[in-house]
Amino acid sequence: MSDYYLEDFSVGQRFVTDAHHLTEADIKRFASEFDPQPFHLDDNAAKDSLFGGLAASGWHTAALTMKLMVEGPFKPVGGLIGAGVEEIRWVKPVRPGDQLTVTTEVIDIRRSRSNPQRGILKIRTTTLNQHGDTVQEFVGNMVAQSRNE
Amino acid sequence: MSDYYLEDFSVGQRFVTDAHHLTEADIKRFASEFDPQPFHLDDNAAKDSLFGGLAASGWHTAALTMKLMVEGPFKPVGGLIGAGVEEIRWVKPVRPGDQLTVTTEVIDIRRSRSNPQRGILKIRTTTLNQHGDTVQEFVGNMVAQSRNE
Repeated sequence: MSDYYLEDFSVGQRFVTDAHHLTEADIKRFASEFDPQPFHLDDNAAKDSLFGGLAASGWHTAALTMKLMVEGPFKPVGGLIGAGVEEIRWVKPVRPGDQLTVTTEVIDIRRSRSNPQRGILKIRTTTLNQHGDTVQEFVGNMVAQSRNE
Repeated sequence: MSDYYLEDFSVGQRFVTDAHHLTEADIKRFASEFDPQPFHLDDNAAKDSLFGGLAASGWHTAALTMKLMVEGPFKPVGGLIGAGVEEIRWVKPVRPGDQLTVTTEVIDIRRSRSNPQRGILKIRTTTLNQHGDTVQEFVGNMVAQSRNE
């Protein structure tokens, strides 16, 4: 399947990625650079926190969700270009050893009035762990190019 | 100033971080791991893209915003624990060499009804470059602990 133009998308389409395995070292490395808080860095401190044990930064989960999407089957022509986030909820902690997959669903499609060569796809992505539990829900808008430009 | 309990926050409070200098190597390293698209990895490909030149992944900007906040003066007791994102807008591209700072403003405070030892702070964070241009706007909710627990 080649990349999708605006006209190739339809509301209700779903795209599922491969899995990504996250290690404890990955969690601590990301956190030390971007979210250096004890519950993302230190097992003992994490036990006494709201997370009840070492947990990935939500921003790490968000970044991995993007990685899985870029490598996955949801491929607008021109790439995955975000036009804004409407919601992110971190529903459950992401733990060392988790295997994450991402499901993307197209929930709305609008052609731009000011620039009809483009449109905006509203998508919902759900990031799941190996138990099928949702760890992150995301709603956002992506740029899509029209075939008729 | 020690860390802030729920009762120490007030609507309109503002907290400003130090600056973080972002290199081209940083942009490419983050992108290669989390957002491997040509406009975040390759100067020539980026020139022909919507970004008009190499630009950081929005998720990189979001992660750096978190880093600056964790190291900055906005310090709820118990740490910076996100209770959900209501909006992220990437207003302008982040370029190699940019110096980013983050301003956090408390825009709403609610005590939890189900758990009055906690509350939720709604914050707006604005990430600026060295020219004073906004590159990212974020609205989200953070957990805050009450002094009276």
